[in-house]
Amino acid sequence: MTDIALDMRHHKRAFADYDPKHFLWSVSPDGRVATITLNRPERKNPLTFDSYAELRDLFRGLCYATDIKAVVITGAGGNFCSGGDVHEIIGPLTRMSMPELLDFTRMTGDLVKAMRACPQPIISAIDGICAGAGAMMALASDMRLGTAEARTAFLFVRVGLAGADMGACTLLPRMIGQGRTSELLYTGRAMTAEEGLHWGFFNALHGSHAVLAEAETLAAQIAGGPTFAHGVTKKLLHQEWNMGVDEAIEAEAEAQAICMQTRDFRRAYDAFVAKQKPVFEGD
Amino acid sequence: MTDIALDMRHHKRAFADYDPKHFLWSVSPDGRVATITLNRPERKNPLTFDSYAELRDLFRGLCYATDIKAVVITGAGGNFCSGGDVHEIIGPLTRMSMPELLDFTRMTGDLVKAMRACPQPIISAIDGICAGAGAMMALASDMRLGTAEARTAFLFVRVGLAGADMGACTLLPRMIGQGRTSELLYTGRAMTAEEGLHWGFFNALHGSHAVLAEAETLAAQIAGGPTFAHGVTKKLLHQEWNMGVDEAIEAEAEAQAICMQTRDFRRAYDAFVAKQKPVFEGD
Amino acid sequence: MTDIALDMRHHKRAFADYDPKHFLWSVSPDGRVATITLNRPERKNPLTFDSYAELRDLFRGLCYATDIKAVVITGAGGNFCSGGDVHEIIGPLTRMSMPELLDFTRMTGDLVKAMRACPQPIISAIDGICAGAGAMMALASDMRLGTAEARTAFLFVRVGLAGADMGACTLLPRMIGQGRTSELLYTGRAMTAEEGLHWGFFNALHGSHAVLAEAETLAAQIAGGPTFAHGVTKKLLHQEWNMGVDEAIEAEAEAQAICMQTRDFRRAYDAFVAKQKPVFEGD
Repeated sequence: MTDIALDMRHHKRAFADYDPKHFLWSVSPDGRVATITLNRPERKNPLTFDSYAELRDLFRGLCYATDIKAVVITGAGGNFCSGGDVHEIIGPLTRMSMPELLDFTRMTGDLVKAMRACPQPIISAIDGICAGAGAMMALASDMRLGTAEARTAFLFVRVGLAGADMGACTLLPRMIGQGRTSELLYTGRAMTAEEGLHWGFFNALHGSHAVLAEAETLAAQIAGGPTFAHGVTKKLLHQEWNMGVDEAIEAEAEAQAICMQTRDFRRAYDAFVAKQKPVFEGD
Repeated sequence: MTDIALDMRHHKRAFADYDPKHFLWSVSPDGRVATITLNRPERKNPLTFDSYAELRDLFRGLCYATDIKAVVITGAGGNFCSGGDVHEIIGPLTRMSMPELLDFTRMTGDLVKAMRACPQPIISAIDGICAGAGAMMALASDMRLGTAEARTAFLFVRVGLAGADMGACTLLPRMIGQGRTSELLYTGRAMTAEEGLHWGFFNALHGSHAVLAEAETLAAQIAGGPTFAHGVTKKLLHQEWNMGVDEAIEAEAEAQAICMQTRDFRRAYDAFVAKQKPVFEGD
Repeated sequence: MTDIALDMRHHKRAFADYDPKHFLWSVSPDGRVATITLNRPERKNPLTFDSYAELRDLFRGLCYATDIKAVVITGAGGNFCSGGDVHEIIGPLTRMSMPELLDFTRMTGDLVKAMRACPQPIISAIDGICAGAGAMMALASDMRLGTAEARTAFLFVRVGLAGADMGACTLLPRMIGQGRTSELLYTGRAMTAEEGLHWGFFNALHGSHAVLAEAETLAAQIAGGPTFAHGVTKKLLHQEWNMGVDEAIEAEAEAQAICMQTRDFRRAYDAFVAKQKPVFEGD
């Protein structure tokens, strides 16, 4: 178990009682898995200036969480997220100066950066509409579970913008390939659930009533693993993005040597010798 | 609409009347979509020193086109392109000095660089043989439509050369994956149309009589979109190739802020508010 | 044919008589294809400190081989490799200092580096268990043939470690995509043979009794090709990992110009003109 006095000195804190203003937050009984629910179902859960900023700040804060080990993102009412709201976001953007526009595009990009930088694996549970910035939140997650009704559209082109938004041109090609990415970004058309599964966007498809539970079960399984090591995996998947193979191998040699001095590594060995299942504690 | 006096000061020009010597060039009635047809059907449309150079110069010129917004490449007579002609190219190469050889390999590489650098999305319509440098032109396109008879072979190995030609070792792995790329480059075997579709090389397959029309329809759809923003998408898909995720996100924040000051962005918003379909003009 | 006196001055040597201590080594009748068989079938062919080091040194040595042109790796008794032995490796690791741990993780990483750096294409023939460091040897190969029973698990997480081991976080995403990689590395679950084929990990599946012969046939085909050029292909697939597209194209222009001055290129042209099949000699 982690040392609470030490956590306090590092200004780490628990997020069980986190109380967001612009979305829902719930934590599993064991305190390890948090679920974020985008919750304006009557509008298919659009993002606003406020919810972008609050999500960004939450994921930045989760770097210092003492309790949460995996995060699930979902949407209320049968849709994931319709992206930036046309009236609340696009209208104001048409009247902004360049520095103000850059404040906005950097804020949305910072949400993706924060999702990639926090140590918790993130699983999106995606039903119905998953569009624009919502599709980017799905893409910025570590894993994605969908339903047959999931329609994922990187539709920036439909509002006169580039497909280059929040990292789409770097994240999507590594997920589904460069050729499929080009089609989705130039046309803005929705990727069907079947395409998403076949192309490697979705890890699996489930029924609409099951997908959130499946995501939370997967998150719980991961949160029950060696979570310090998970954070290392996530960090290196990020840092090796534009490293050479040899440099990546050296980075992993150093990172894995660090993991070999964790108690979880010892716990796994002891459990193996005792013919038991290891109980990981994340330190 | 773009300002013609300004275009002239930037030395931009129309390509509607472009008149190539070594392939065919046609432009759609609205002037936005150009179709390049490789046209030596009796030899399955091979490339020659002259056609390489002319294609390179054309794509370089298209950076300054005032009219063309998307390009289709196809081949006459049921084949796409058989690659560098054995008699007209490979024979002479066997007698060249190293500087002369490098002049050649850089010219072919420059064709790919020019295809990636022009702002127009490029769609290849591929039937029958698509081999060697022809396969590379297909790969250097943004999207590819094929037919069931399309046979795509990176067959450099069959003439005693490396699979490393015109960027194959960087472009193909990001399209179909590193393992499949290795097989195709080491063996030189043809990828079937079904494999190409399944692996993400082809965006779709159509009948032989329909594939060119489908490509031109897709090109027209894209050319009717926000073409300034398309150029940004294409540039960033290129520039982010070896960027870190965080740096790519910042590059997109800047690029999208630029797009948010285009008239097309405003047109999309106004149309949405008026419950109409936006008419983009590319500025 | 290569010049033996020159080979001796470059300290190159034949590997036909190589006699390893910790695995089997056999060479095809023509001397060009070597097969490595991991051979502790009663334990599903685990790796030990000794076999890691010997494999690393072998692949480093193969850079200077005069005879071997392609390598097959397989396992005895219906399994490929169970990874690092729990008793012989994991136990000792739990008692090591940081410098000792780094000696180990660098040794395992050096095996992958050596496999990627030798000019011979490597084909793994994979049946049954393919786990941990065994999965990494498969991944570090150029091509993979499997069986329906192949179960490939990057199971580092199950022993309390990160998925970042021996280059997994850089190699696996480029093979099967970033999303599928995340699932395999965070959960440690086995990838089925069908998934591996569909996702691009396996190049093909064969029956258990045929897979080794198929791998050796493919290796013989490749070894009968222009092997100097194959070495260039392999080197550039490696070096272009984090290059920009334009820089990669220039690297290939230089590399291919070099290949155009080999005798194999001339042999291919002469054979074509004579309507014969070229006989490549690798120089």
